[in-house]
Amino acid sequence: MTSAAVETMRSEKLAPRLVRALRGEPVDRLPVWFMRQAGRSLPEYREVRKGASLMEITHRAELAAEVTLQPVRRHGVDAAILFSDIVTPLEAIGVPIEIKPGVGPVIATPVRAAGDLKQLRAFEPQSDAPWLIETIELICRESPVPLIGFAGAPFTLASYLVEGGPSRSHARAKAMMLSEPQLWRELTDRLADIAVASLRAQVAAGAQAVQVFDSWVGSLSVAQYREGVLPGLTRLFGELRDLGAPRTYFGLGSGHLLEEIARFEPSAVGLDWRVPLSEGRARLGAGFAVQGNLDPVTVFCPEPVLAREVAKVLEDSPGIGHVFNLGHGVLPESDPGVLTHIVELVHQHDPGVQ
Amino acid sequence: MTSAAVETMRSEKLAPRLVRALRGEPVDRLPVWFMRQAGRSLPEYREVRKGASLMEITHRAELAAEVTLQPVRRHGVDAAILFSDIVTPLEAIGVPIEIKPGVGPVIATPVRAAGDLKQLRAFEPQSDAPWLIETIELICRESPVPLIGFAGAPFTLASYLVEGGPSRSHARAKAMMLSEPQLWRELTDRLADIAVASLRAQVAAGAQAVQVFDSWVGSLSVAQYREGVLPGLTRLFGELRDLGAPRTYFGLGSGHLLEEIARFEPSAVGLDWRVPLSEGRARLGAGFAVQGNLDPVTVFCPEPVLAREVAKVLEDSPGIGHVFNLGHGVLPESDPGVLTHIVELVHQHDPGVQ
Repeated sequence: MTSAAVETMRSEKLAPRLVRALRGEPVDRLPVWFMRQAGRSLPEYREVRKGASLMEITHRAELAAEVTLQPVRRHGVDAAILFSDIVTPLEAIGVPIEIKPGVGPVIATPVRAAGDLKQLRAFEPQSDAPWLIETIELICRESPVPLIGFAGAPFTLASYLVEGGPSRSHARAKAMMLSEPQLWRELTDRLADIAVASLRAQVAAGAQAVQVFDSWVGSLSVAQYREGVLPGLTRLFGELRDLGAPRTYFGLGSGHLLEEIARFEPSAVGLDWRVPLSEGRARLGAGFAVQGNLDPVTVFCPEPVLAREVAKVLEDSPGIGHVFNLGHGVLPESDPGVLTHIVELVHQHDPGVQ
Repeated sequence: MTSAAVETMRSEKLAPRLVRALRGEPVDRLPVWFMRQAGRSLPEYREVRKGASLMEITHRAELAAEVTLQPVRRHGVDAAILFSDIVTPLEAIGVPIEIKPGVGPVIATPVRAAGDLKQLRAFEPQSDAPWLIETIELICRESPVPLIGFAGAPFTLASYLVEGGPSRSHARAKAMMLSEPQLWRELTDRLADIAVASLRAQVAAGAQAVQVFDSWVGSLSVAQYREGVLPGLTRLFGELRDLGAPRTYFGLGSGHLLEEIARFEPSAVGLDWRVPLSEGRARLGAGFAVQGNLDPVTVFCPEPVLAREVAKVLEDSPGIGHVFNLGHGVLPESDPGVLTHIVELVHQHDPGVQ
């Protein structure tokens, strides 16, 4: 065996379960974590929130690291994910954003015309968000499991920016996408570059994987996604390819878009509970890991029903190239004890492909 | 030619464009109407609403008929649809429901256990809702186009009843569906029977077609839909089959459920903007008309873009068996002049199959 091969073997052995699964390599147990595992479902998070707003937490490294690590300690999950909000980098470059409790991010200066793009200058994490780097370094020093870096995708951020806040129809944003393709392209390119800058800095500071959240993309037809969203994501994921860290993409309700998602080549694709893992893998084609996809509402079912639903997902698991997760974020009313139990159930399962 | 054949020919000639399209028969022009065409997009509706709440309007036949006919007069659409709310029959049998502006239906006595089902007694339109029959008769006397009867589907109504109001996750309702299949079945059977009673009465009073709205069904996986929703819909649509009036089913975000929807044999299926008409027809199989599916946000685009988007839908139209509509309800901020223009664009189109 050459020394290079030994080195490869050694580094593979050392790679944590999460990273191996995202790379499509065999694992001893399926890795499991939960989207929104840090947050309102945990009493220890609600305790921290009594003294600080969401934005204040993200700006104070010791608090952000603390809430990021809370679910790791409590549930024994296989990954930490940076506690943040997708609008954090926008706020860091000076876009006037407020996160209103019960509403979401509200933007005082919505983007409606080319002149409004000025506010979206390049994001330079070292100077614009030193607390971001500090938070990641703190987490990586303390965490027993790898950290996943976190960013919002261009369409979803563009919707907030164009609408001026959360929207159910995304009417203004989609109308801009359909009517002003050049302005829209400039907007989403800038947002892609901001995500790239943020994720590269997060990996440089210690994150071992990244996930891009495209929360609102389920509102688009295939044609709309292909024309208005794919260029920005191709730019974003292309700029991350040399990083080495696996890149996951998740969009709620994006089951009809999987063939398009495969085109920009994320390492892994998050599937919500409406796309069976086996179907998702088949539609993506070879070379993609999948993440998901227990329906988050099953947490509210009695144990035998919960165990049955977890078993259904595990039966449909490919074993290799699967990170267990919910099909969407933890609902705030979830009982954290039930989440811990899900981790146990997944870890008891033999992926059968070691 | 037998006299029966002559009769058939005559009745077919007399059948309005909407009914012919829903039956899969050739039409001179594609029929077009808009979900939520009656309502907040029209200044004449907002005028009526100044003096009466939504529930009051549904209870006063002359007002309900007036707002139902407003979009027919203004836009020249090919159908009227009863102005109502899906919870109206529940309110009529005494369930304590309030429609809170900006929130939606709120139910004081949510269904959480078998004992809570008592409040869902049989709906007897003649005695429980004489205003409903009166409204339909008034509309049919005055309307130049056919009236579509209106009802809510069991899953969507069950979600309101179990949650006690609108919900984004439908967590309690879905947890009941997964955990207490017998209670859930009893609940959804009762709701199916209520819809049947309402729709049969509406057709008896003059409605020439019916549409069942299943607004929240897009939140379900195929397996969840098959086990928890299909039985109620099979019951509901089975009980309407002898009516003669075409039966349309629409559920937002139900693109992944089309193969299941075909099983209970609606006459027509509403497709939202995420499922191309040609794809929807292919997946449903032979014998189904389709309705849709212009993205409602295109109403906010400048005319050339709007015309292009309408043309795309028309290019994908099968000609026979297609009712033009939006892919979801009219957004309240829509300019009614633009809606009228869409009707003109559709009517200018030659379906090419007369």
